[in-house]
Amino acid sequence: MTSERPVEDLVVGVLGGTGPQGRGLGVRLASAGQRVLLGSRDAERAAEVAATVAARAATAAADGVQVSVTGGSNADVAGAADLVIVAVPFAGHAELLTELAGSLAGKVVIDCVVPMGFDELGAYVLDVAEGSVTQQAAALLPDSQVVGAFHHLSAVSLEDLSHPTLEGDVMVVGDVRAATDLVQALAGRLPGMRGVYAGRLRNARQVEALTINLVSVNRRYKVHAGIRVTDV
Amino acid sequence: MTSERPVEDLVVGVLGGTGPQGRGLGVRLASAGQRVLLGSRDAERAAEVAATVAARAATAAADGVQVSVTGGSNADVAGAADLVIVAVPFAGHAELLTELAGSLAGKVVIDCVVPMGFDELGAYVLDVAEGSVTQQAAALLPDSQVVGAFHHLSAVSLEDLSHPTLEGDVMVVGDVRAATDLVQALAGRLPGMRGVYAGRLRNARQVEALTINLVSVNRRYKVHAGIRVTDV
Repeated sequence: MTSERPVEDLVVGVLGGTGPQGRGLGVRLASAGQRVLLGSRDAERAAEVAATVAARAATAAADGVQVSVTGGSNADVAGAADLVIVAVPFAGHAELLTELAGSLAGKVVIDCVVPMGFDELGAYVLDVAEGSVTQQAAALLPDSQVVGAFHHLSAVSLEDLSHPTLEGDVMVVGDVRAATDLVQALAGRLPGMRGVYAGRLRNARQVEALTINLVSVNRRYKVHAGIRVTDV
Repeated sequence: MTSERPVEDLVVGVLGGTGPQGRGLGVRLASAGQRVLLGSRDAERAAEVAATVAARAATAAADGVQVSVTGGSNADVAGAADLVIVAVPFAGHAELLTELAGSLAGKVVIDCVVPMGFDELGAYVLDVAEGSVTQQAAALLPDSQVVGAFHHLSAVSLEDLSHPTLEGDVMVVGDVRAATDLVQALAGRLPGMRGVYAGRLRNARQVEALTINLVSVNRRYKVHAGIRVTDV
């Protein structure tokens, strides 16, 4: 299913779509004309957030762009979407994907979850038995094509529509070329951004974890940092 | 010693200074006017390489910039330099630092070593018991101030003086502010580059390992990729 339809025709589901990262990706993709389904444990809450996100996306969309954002349970969204972004907190990651493995079979699943803990010294990387969160997803979803991407986008910048263009690249990791190509194309739908292929799943860990360094950058410089890959 | 003299007055030693990364950093720093000592296991070889690097740096240096590059054994360089960059292969990292711990005491030591292995699938991250190469250095050099930096600079780009300006940032990790400030200042001596503080030593692993993703980027796009931190 990855190669048959152009990316702009695909319905994008966001699991954990009512959190900051999920909402931010949702509003930006919707304002670019992508049909978006926001999922949550609480379907009513998802519907409420989707209405707000749709209204915000409409204010940012170019003339003639159809904005479509609806909400539902994570399970309904997993079933209905063509392409699914996982944006839940790490603490609920394994359990949710175990539950939804059937609905996600045959689909490209984009994991943007960061294994981040905080203590008195700031942010640090949580250990993941599978090596990375993306590899955990791949282990739990053997019939999906799992890709890691969208880790380095600040939720604050995504939601701040007063800046129509984002600054940064989306590092995309995965083992299946058709799937990473599709996710790169989806990243390219975000204004100002590019999807850059950045290696295999076994090298996902440091892409996820670099987000934690960006938290340190943000704190030191009072910014919302992202990453650009130079020379590409 | 970190705060008393401006960075441009410090003599920079490079352990493993005859390898591609060491030579590349050496030629760029020397052409910016930094006094450079290139170290090698083989002092004669270091002297030969230093002469070549000095000649190349002189062709790239602005008028009036004094170019000074000399070579010596790693031990002599560790003793004579004010500030030391470790650019040896990972395989020899722990042994060399154990030997030189005395000479490096009281100094800022910059580790740019990447724990990288290769197999039929490409590059991957080697496990380091201490968490990262930089943390290994810190464990072996308890009386030095260890900073991680300069991982993401392509040796090819560093050595290609036909491009006078480099494109990218130097992510700097460390636990001592005076030391990370000094290393940021040193990074700023490279034309076009900035040193960006990117967190504590415990978050060094992913900065080192991201270099391995840049290898994948280079292979896919036929480039010599680096990293820019956006919004800083």
